[in-house]
Amino acid sequence: MTFNTILIVGGGLIGSSIARAAKAYDQAKTLYITDNSHSACSAIERLGIADGVSEGQADYFASQADLVVLCVPPGRMGSVAEKIIPNMKSGAVLSDVGSIKGAVIEAVTPFLRDDITFIPAHPIAGTEYSGPEAGSADMFKDRWCVLTPTKKGLPETKQLKDFWQGFGSQVSIMTPKRHDIVLATTSHVPHLIAYTLVGTAVDMEKVTANEVVKYSAGGFRDFTRIAASDPVMWRDVFLSNREATLEVVDRFIEDLTALKRAIRWEDGETLLEHFAKTRDIRRRIVDAGQDSAEPNFGRHD
Amino acid sequence: MTFNTILIVGGGLIGSSIARAAKAYDQAKTLYITDNSHSACSAIERLGIADGVSEGQADYFASQADLVVLCVPPGRMGSVAEKIIPNMKSGAVLSDVGSIKGAVIEAVTPFLRDDITFIPAHPIAGTEYSGPEAGSADMFKDRWCVLTPTKKGLPETKQLKDFWQGFGSQVSIMTPKRHDIVLATTSHVPHLIAYTLVGTAVDMEKVTANEVVKYSAGGFRDFTRIAASDPVMWRDVFLSNREATLEVVDRFIEDLTALKRAIRWEDGETLLEHFAKTRDIRRRIVDAGQDSAEPNFGRHD
Ligand SMILES: NC(=O)c1ccc[n+]([C@@H]2O[C@H](COP(=O)([O-])OP(=O)(O)OC[C@H]3O[C@@H](n4cnc5c(N)ncnc54)[C@H](OP(=O)(O)O)[C@@H]3O)[C@@H](O)[C@H]2O)c1
Ligand SMILES: NC(=O)c1ccc[n+]([C@@H]2O[C@H](COP(=O)([O-])OP(=O)(O)OC[C@H]3O[C@@H](n4cnc5c(N)ncnc54)[C@H](OP(=O)(O)O)[C@@H]3O)[C@@H](O)[C@H]2O)c1
Repeated sequence: MTFNTILIVGGGLIGSSIARAAKAYDQAKTLYITDNSHSACSAIERLGIADGVSEGQADYFASQADLVVLCVPPGRMGSVAEKIIPNMKSGAVLSDVGSIKGAVIEAVTPFLRDDITFIPAHPIAGTEYSGPEAGSADMFKDRWCVLTPTKKGLPETKQLKDFWQGFGSQVSIMTPKRHDIVLATTSHVPHLIAYTLVGTAVDMEKVTANEVVKYSAGGFRDFTRIAASDPVMWRDVFLSNREATLEVVDRFIEDLTALKRAIRWEDGETLLEHFAKTRDIRRRIVDAGQDSAEPNFGRHD
Repeated sequence: MTFNTILIVGGGLIGSSIARAAKAYDQAKTLYITDNSHSACSAIERLGIADGVSEGQADYFASQADLVVLCVPPGRMGSVAEKIIPNMKSGAVLSDVGSIKGAVIEAVTPFLRDDITFIPAHPIAGTEYSGPEAGSADMFKDRWCVLTPTKKGLPETKQLKDFWQGFGSQVSIMTPKRHDIVLATTSHVPHLIAYTLVGTAVDMEKVTANEVVKYSAGGFRDFTRIAASDPVMWRDVFLSNREATLEVVDRFIEDLTALKRAIRWEDGETLLEHFAKTRDIRRRIVDAGQDSAEPNFGRHD
């Protein structure tokens, strides 16, 4: 057991999954959750995944916790930190799971205390659903968790690493800046593009929404899954990771424009060359255990 | 049984699936396959999914078939039609499964005979894999198949409709032009975008391929599945459906540019408004039985 008592702030998809995993993998003796949503708190009680649940603030929980993990939307991290930190016990560890790191660190830092260590984290795992019911104990198994400590060699970094490895995750350490550009590439821009394309399809005057639904098995339905993710969280992600998102989007638009030109000029060579090089990355992702090799992801229907 | 004897030209993913389905759903007494790939022919023999297999041309098969279905890449349809049609028996039906219809009709039409009826078709089903081993008898179940007959009220259209319904497909009829713009939206442009984004990620100097692989579970891995589809087929699709593809891509770039601007100007309202409207289409796709509601498509990995 790495931490005795843990407080999760925000018991949604990720927070409730940490709670479940902490119990399933024996990573906490006592686990508390606070959430400002009444329905989330009721669901957490019903699910029985915490030793204590509180709607709104919970000074007592904060004062007991050896580890506090902020699992609220990125845009809420600052205001939550402001309220929680003054109540935390001396020597405790503060962490978060926000999908961007630079902006979260910036928001939390003004409220930090000298006797509290803040180790930002981001588990690269999740689904398109939100809320405590959508969580699961195995959410983080075989996935990577990135830690972005602001100082080198902290013992708390090692502790948090053990904690995440306890869930079956692999842990890597990088700077917040690097995290944000890497994740802009592998997560943020893919989401932005999926949201955009689904919107484009819905708005095409020449094609009805009904047609889009019927013929979605040709590829489009994959995009709609990603574009069904929580709008508030993703708005926060794009606004807080503006620079990196825009950098990757610009590269993407450049590349798309080049392929557009190849199509317009019937330059099959260029298309083929481009399409052939993307297969290798798929094979590597499957080999690394990051995706299923089954056709269509092994969907059943 | 709608057709007695069927010849499939090109026994790959789609052709071999039709062969399996024809047997499984009792839609053919005799089913022949020809394919110009030696390894595909050996696989088809090994799988035992045809009553006769021939590498290269097969005049005898063509002369016996009541239905010939061209299942070769879109760019090969014309040359295959030129060779097969002279050997077909009078009164037979010719069809195809090409992912675009305008260009295939244009390529096949010069070789048509008055005593042969050509009914183009496109089953909206498939996977990212190619070849006869990747096929399955239930590929077309609960999926849509679009027929684009060039004349109204043909009895052969009704016959082909029965044939596809026999596989558990739903059949709709539209003009080739409408098919091509609808499919550009729901299939062709999604593929082009997936190919582009995977290429962009691989080419980012600031992000290594290794990082892209490790952190792909954030959304990127979905794109790599689509971008692992057959490069030759997709080159053909984009070149043969140029106009519609470019039209949808241009709309997409416009929309992406608007969202980019919203991010740059920190206009959260616009982002939220856009992201909220895309959820409904997902719900409709799941309700229509066109996708699984399970988180992450119910992947097991
Ligand atoms: N979803 C993913 O795939 C994923 C993956 C990795 C990391 N993350 C990160 O994980 C975090 C949580 O995301 P999630 O998907 O778990 O979201 P979620 O399911 O919507 O859960 C968030 C919960 O936090 C509550 N909350 C909001 N503000 C709060 C506050 N001030 N105090 C207490 N509770 C508050 C929310 O209640 P209300 O509904 O009332 O706001 C909600 O119950 C985000 O920072 C996100 O970037 C998400
Ligand atoms: N894949 C999908 O998801 C999907 C969905 C709906 C419709 N379609 C359409 O279905 C058609 C076939 O696609 P597929 O995915 O089944 O491709 P595939 O698995 O690659 O199979 C095509 C087969 O046709 C063979 N072939 C090529 N030229 C030939 C010729 N002149 N004579 C005889 N055989 C020939 C190929 O052999 P070689 O390898 O030697 O070329 C290959 O074995 C395409 O028109 C495509 O647009 C595909």
